[in-house]
Amino acid sequence: MRTLKVLAFTALVLNAAAAAAQNSQVTRPVTSSSVTLFGIVDIGLAYGTGTEASRTQLASGRTSASRWGVRGFEDLGGGLAAGFWLEAGLNADDGTGGTTSTNNQPSGTTSALFNRRSTVSLISNWGELRLGRDFTSIFRNRDDVDPFTTSGVGANLADALTIAGTTATRASNMVAYFLPSNLGGFFGEAQYFMGENVDVSNVPSPDDGDGFAGRLGWAGGGFAVAVAGSRTQYGQSATTGDIEVVNVGASYDFQFMKISAGYYHDEIKQISPVTATGYLVGAVFPIGPGQLKFSFSSYGTDEPDDPRGDKAAVGYVYNLSKRTSVYGTYAYLHNSGGASFTLNGALTAPDRHSAGFDLGIKHIF
Amino acid sequence: MRTLKVLAFTALVLNAAAAAAQNSQVTRPVTSSSVTLFGIVDIGLAYGTGTEASRTQLASGRTSASRWGVRGFEDLGGGLAAGFWLEAGLNADDGTGGTTSTNNQPSGTTSALFNRRSTVSLISNWGELRLGRDFTSIFRNRDDVDPFTTSGVGANLADALTIAGTTATRASNMVAYFLPSNLGGFFGEAQYFMGENVDVSNVPSPDDGDGFAGRLGWAGGGFAVAVAGSRTQYGQSATTGDIEVVNVGASYDFQFMKISAGYYHDEIKQISPVTATGYLVGAVFPIGPGQLKFSFSSYGTDEPDDPRGDKAAVGYVYNLSKRTSVYGTYAYLHNSGGASFTLNGALTAPDRHSAGFDLGIKHIF
Amino acid sequence: MRTLKVLAFTALVLNAAAAAAQNSQVTRPVTSSSVTLFGIVDIGLAYGTGTEASRTQLASGRTSASRWGVRGFEDLGGGLAAGFWLEAGLNADDGTGGTTSTNNQPSGTTSALFNRRSTVSLISNWGELRLGRDFTSIFRNRDDVDPFTTSGVGANLADALTIAGTTATRASNMVAYFLPSNLGGFFGEAQYFMGENVDVSNVPSPDDGDGFAGRLGWAGGGFAVAVAGSRTQYGQSATTGDIEVVNVGASYDFQFMKISAGYYHDEIKQISPVTATGYLVGAVFPIGPGQLKFSFSSYGTDEPDDPRGDKAAVGYVYNLSKRTSVYGTYAYLHNSGGASFTLNGALTAPDRHSAGFDLGIKHIF
Repeated sequence: MRTLKVLAFTALVLNAAAAAAQNSQVTRPVTSSSVTLFGIVDIGLAYGTGTEASRTQLASGRTSASRWGVRGFEDLGGGLAAGFWLEAGLNADDGTGGTTSTNNQPSGTTSALFNRRSTVSLISNWGELRLGRDFTSIFRNRDDVDPFTTSGVGANLADALTIAGTTATRASNMVAYFLPSNLGGFFGEAQYFMGENVDVSNVPSPDDGDGFAGRLGWAGGGFAVAVAGSRTQYGQSATTGDIEVVNVGASYDFQFMKISAGYYHDEIKQISPVTATGYLVGAVFPIGPGQLKFSFSSYGTDEPDDPRGDKAAVGYVYNLSKRTSVYGTYAYLHNSGGASFTLNGALTAPDRHSAGFDLGIKHIF
Repeated sequence: MRTLKVLAFTALVLNAAAAAAQNSQVTRPVTSSSVTLFGIVDIGLAYGTGTEASRTQLASGRTSASRWGVRGFEDLGGGLAAGFWLEAGLNADDGTGGTTSTNNQPSGTTSALFNRRSTVSLISNWGELRLGRDFTSIFRNRDDVDPFTTSGVGANLADALTIAGTTATRASNMVAYFLPSNLGGFFGEAQYFMGENVDVSNVPSPDDGDGFAGRLGWAGGGFAVAVAGSRTQYGQSATTGDIEVVNVGASYDFQFMKISAGYYHDEIKQISPVTATGYLVGAVFPIGPGQLKFSFSSYGTDEPDDPRGDKAAVGYVYNLSKRTSVYGTYAYLHNSGGASFTLNGALTAPDRHSAGFDLGIKHIF
Repeated sequence: MRTLKVLAFTALVLNAAAAAAQNSQVTRPVTSSSVTLFGIVDIGLAYGTGTEASRTQLASGRTSASRWGVRGFEDLGGGLAAGFWLEAGLNADDGTGGTTSTNNQPSGTTSALFNRRSTVSLISNWGELRLGRDFTSIFRNRDDVDPFTTSGVGANLADALTIAGTTATRASNMVAYFLPSNLGGFFGEAQYFMGENVDVSNVPSPDDGDGFAGRLGWAGGGFAVAVAGSRTQYGQSATTGDIEVVNVGASYDFQFMKISAGYYHDEIKQISPVTATGYLVGAVFPIGPGQLKFSFSSYGTDEPDDPRGDKAAVGYVYNLSKRTSVYGTYAYLHNSGGASFTLNGALTAPDRHSAGFDLGIKHIF
């Protein structure tokens, strides 16, 4: 039974863990009914340079992904509530939308109406049952600890370069359970998502796109830590196989400075397995009406010569209000082991560097 | 003149008929101006089994199609009002949207912004003039009498298996007239829709995708009855031809039980015409804070061996509020005449059965 | 430096010029914060006839493009404000959406979420900085002086037939500066947009899709005049080359009648360059609760035989309220020089005429 597999795996991945950061979207107290139209328009000039070619773009989402959506909560009484969340990604520089995968497999990639999140929930003091398309747990430890929240030229390399495939950030066809918010600082979730293939004997991989994810964390007194893991099933071949992810994130807020760190382990269990490892360290200083941000992130695989990228980033966000800010970010990426990763769409030779900056405006509505 | 054809056909199809049920969307009294953002997020676990393969999915719209939209009314004074309705279908399990047909022909099928409805209306005491994309009249007799409102594993087989083609449920490029609501219980509409082909002499089928539909009904004292019909033109060949539909629906509300029935006749006038017939009987019992639902539906064609599906369905909807419910539905489908229809994406051998269930959450906003 | 090219070109195109008409969307005073859901649903019967074929359609946007969107302003204090504008085109007759170009080149054409406008702005007493996808300046002199606002069968031929390519109406990846509204009637903007190609030496045309546009005008005492220009870069071949546009528009409101005129000069600098010229004269009379509109427009190229279309249009818009109107428009198009342009999708032989009418309903929300 798949259901049993869900429970067994959930027990495995739900270990001690952290970071109820700005985007964690865990169960929240519901005090009244509401429907909210919301969004972000974040556009910046994005310049990238490498040894082979540079590139200048006006690009979307340099500090937060541009988006629009509708979400709401209904207080059902007796501690019970219902909620929904429909959220579409938006390339605000040209007006295009985002893509989803209907089956958590590369074959299901298609344009979407609400690609970022499409869920309905029942919420009680016992936690939240959430159905639909949503972030996978493993994304949150890449995002919550990243001073640049996985956006723009400064984004956590373990996010920008991840080998974790179609379900690295989100999954469709997901049944998720989130812990309630009254557990003395503990938070977490268990997720089961489906590839929805026809289960017929002569199809080689009926379980392709099925998977589990989970996260458990604790936050309190300025400290937060979380561990997450996932496994998505794909038929084994020379270039595909099950993808397993384990990562951990932690942060501490000294008030004058918030520091954070993450460690990432992603494995594709193809016939000759590939393992990627990475880490991030970050620091954010509240300075004036804004934040000065630093991060160093590294990500690479155990393929021949151990190709790897290492990136340092610095940025400042100047808040004009709670809803509007202007920002600038600079990053420098160093390649090794034959890698030729680049920033902001530039091209560079193997083992050479790439650099780039973002300069833009973000508005939340 | 096409206009004359519209009027002549309209007179033919507007006979006695029924069911101002929950989704009938006929002319309504307008008391003030408003713009409303609305939608439904309905997601459930959908399991199907057959003799050849089973399938487990998280699926959207198991009791009502998931959707979002904007609609509004403006009171123009003097008994006149204007209205608009923009409504997009949504596969809430993966965030994808729906499709439309720009020309009421298979060739025009494409992804859409507002595929379910896109209309502007003028409304007076004399009725409503409605322009745009909307349901065709023949759909309403499949939906209004169906305890499962043509959604999920229990849906009316005459809807799920219909051979009525591109305009079976909706049509684009439509001019419609709806009767006003002050006719002593009578309700109905006449619709003319266009394929919009270039009318040049050497094109074989300039009228492809043109068509008419209409419905007339009466509702009162718990009783409702309606008859509907449509004709869509397609050039005749071995596999295509004009599609003609006539159906009827009726319901009576005993308070402790509401019973309903429908009869369906769909014909493709290809060189060797194919006719499909079907029927539905249903019953809904208000029990506790919810409804217990039963239906039996049957649909099949006069192709060799008379392939046919017969389905029994039972379901319960538990209302947590007016906006939120949880539900479960079970259905069993029997094939005959060489048919191999299935439920919830399973596979089955000819003349063998398929069964399935839905279990989910629906939230209206 | 591209930035220098922007400034130099901007100085060239920003000459004296006009028409802060109904759709000009220039910088506006911001008095408080708001988020607005808005749109237009405009659908009409559109008939066209020519010597070869006629066509009847239910068509969208016969007096204004159908659309929906979300826009907002935030007062940041100290004379500063932020704004955003997300607007999607809509074919309300069939529910489909619009297209954008991600790179201001034909290769980048794709379906879009918000194809009409997707921008974020910072606004001060010194003007507005606007980033994203928006109208190009040259469009406004085609639209502002057109009694039929470039919509439907009566639309300015210099708009309907323009050879100005992908950036004729809008551009993506744009940085724009708009003059403030306190300059004694002067208004205008400077725009720089990017093709965003990788700038690698062996790619023939790294600047394809890069371009500049600008406009300068003055309005006062019922008079308005504006001049605009643009240049979009494309690698030169037999069929492509840089596209340069210069146009001018003016209007005067006599109260009992508003007259307007425009002149258009579009050039494709391919190996054998093609130049198109056109003009429009229009008049609008406020009569009863509506407007009676006349226009004559002409557009043609210097290709062999000087193919050209000349169109006369007359229409009446009856306003049922500020938000709702019904309308009728008739137009007659004369071809010369071997041209076979048509109205409303008809077909006609070279040098023969085409005629057509629109009859519809428009509702603003």
